[in-house]
Amino acid sequence: MTGKVYLIGAGPGDVELLTLRALRMIREADAVVYDRLVSDEIMEIVPSTAQKVFVGKTPQNHPVGQEQINQILVDLAKQGLTVARLKGGDPLIFGRGSEEAAHLRSHGIAVQYAPGITAAQGAASSCGVPLTHRGLATGVQYVTGHTQADGELDLDWKSLASEDTTLVVYMGVANISQIAMRLMAAGLADDTPVMAVANATTPRESRMFSVLGRIASDSREAGLKAPVLYIIGKVVTVCNEWPVNQFLAATENEQEEYAGVASHA
Amino acid sequence: MTGKVYLIGAGPGDVELLTLRALRMIREADAVVYDRLVSDEIMEIVPSTAQKVFVGKTPQNHPVGQEQINQILVDLAKQGLTVARLKGGDPLIFGRGSEEAAHLRSHGIAVQYAPGITAAQGAASSCGVPLTHRGLATGVQYVTGHTQADGELDLDWKSLASEDTTLVVYMGVANISQIAMRLMAAGLADDTPVMAVANATTPRESRMFSVLGRIASDSREAGLKAPVLYIIGKVVTVCNEWPVNQFLAATENEQEEYAGVASHA
Ligand SMILES: C[S@@+](CC[C@H](N)C(=O)[O-])C[C@H]1O[C@@H](n2cnc3c(N)ncnc32)[C@H](O)[C@@H]1O
Ligand SMILES: C[S@@+](CC[C@H](N)C(=O)[O-])C[C@H]1O[C@@H](n2cnc3c(N)ncnc32)[C@H](O)[C@@H]1O
Repeated sequence: MTGKVYLIGAGPGDVELLTLRALRMIREADAVVYDRLVSDEIMEIVPSTAQKVFVGKTPQNHPVGQEQINQILVDLAKQGLTVARLKGGDPLIFGRGSEEAAHLRSHGIAVQYAPGITAAQGAASSCGVPLTHRGLATGVQYVTGHTQADGELDLDWKSLASEDTTLVVYMGVANISQIAMRLMAAGLADDTPVMAVANATTPRESRMFSVLGRIASDSREAGLKAPVLYIIGKVVTVCNEWPVNQFLAATENEQEEYAGVASHA
Repeated sequence: MTGKVYLIGAGPGDVELLTLRALRMIREADAVVYDRLVSDEIMEIVPSTAQKVFVGKTPQNHPVGQEQINQILVDLAKQGLTVARLKGGDPLIFGRGSEEAAHLRSHGIAVQYAPGITAAQGAASSCGVPLTHRGLATGVQYVTGHTQADGELDLDWKSLASEDTTLVVYMGVANISQIAMRLMAAGLADDTPVMAVANATTPRESRMFSVLGRIASDSREAGLKAPVLYIIGKVVTVCNEWPVNQFLAATENEQEEYAGVASHA
């Protein structure tokens, strides 16, 4: 008897942001295969009887390749196990869930999805920053700031530089300097508001407010480390913590003060 | 003692897609203020002791204006109640959650958010269509196809017509003809794959596969009615049900056969 694989979005970190479906699937699992972005709090609710397989990977250091992960999932399911494949956020948004599903189905293994709260939604709700808002953003766009093998960011900058759209940059911390420069070159104003959120919805959450023209140097000075999400656009000013009045009135020197890291305590 | 308001994303319809936080907040509520898009299944888990206030509105027929909703929320909270404001999908994506939050805070009422699975994520997971996928989409964009008072769609078409981005159109069914035309005029190919999903994740879910050049007539013929979501882009071909081989080889007449409505049974 072949088992099955649940491709589960574990959300941004806070265990309360799991869906009821994700919880049910985790509880049914004989084996849990999980990524680096699945929080410790979430791993604590995994049944103690379930086999746990860590397949975490960092951008710099790839301990487990995608082919190896695919093989692990196939092997576990072929043993007749119910496998919970846990991923940060949503499995179908920068999650390679559909690649794993295609591989599993080609081996005759049944797959079911549980969507998850994305990191963007987690950051938005925890900071009180809407992703769309009348008069500020008619839509929202998620992009990846992760470079391909050749080191080039292959993005459609003209399309991203829309001042009426909220832009959420995933995996952008290493390339934020190039990203900000290209967005400004494509037409976004250098005083476009930006919020950087690290470890959103976890006890280690921190936020930084800045503007496009300064976000690269501010990120460097603050020593931001992945997982970080950048939310770029007018919606950022809706946040209670946005220093909008002071900021607009400030000279460039004074502005630096307001672009500091605010800890989420 | 002033009460408080929980701004809760109830997800696309399936009660299993509620987050644990949403469930907790619903259970704590003394009063529930809910929209048309909150499913009956979800309303069934509301405590029988809670007061229920329906503030549903349709695009054609606005029974309860936003100001009136704001007033209802303030009144209930001022009575000292814990109010659960339930919205379809996520409260911060086309949900006006941040407008309600600003109004409540200006009256000294505390607000807390629970993010929710968006209709796009619900449709994606239930249809097996990824929102991003290596080689097919480097990002995803959500826009609204709802017109402003003047009847004009005020969107940045050049920015939307990016063939490497998945485009999700919310509230688009009434204007799909204009939307498809403008996207093609801005450069998207007329054979760009499209999936329309109505009532995603509910027992009434239905899907239709088509291409940009035919989606308006297909929507009309199928009699699609809101809530409908259009997912536009190459990712649609990842779905098992996408008739990709036949479709590419087919003559225009044959294509019509493949663009029929598939019921989710
Ligand atoms: C491979 S992507 C996974 C995205 C995920 N599937 C989602 O739907 O949110 C990893 C990136 O997501 C973002 N991310 C994930 N969790 C995060 C968190 N708790 N706080 C901030 N960013 C996060 C970071 O940009 C990180 O580099
Ligand atoms: C006011 S918007 C609310 C969006 C919601 N806040 C979200 O995050 O998904 C209403 C629109 O969402 C879409 N929608 C909501 N629920 C849906 C469902 N179950 N199936 C398809 N579309 C849905 C439709 O386009 C509908 O017109």
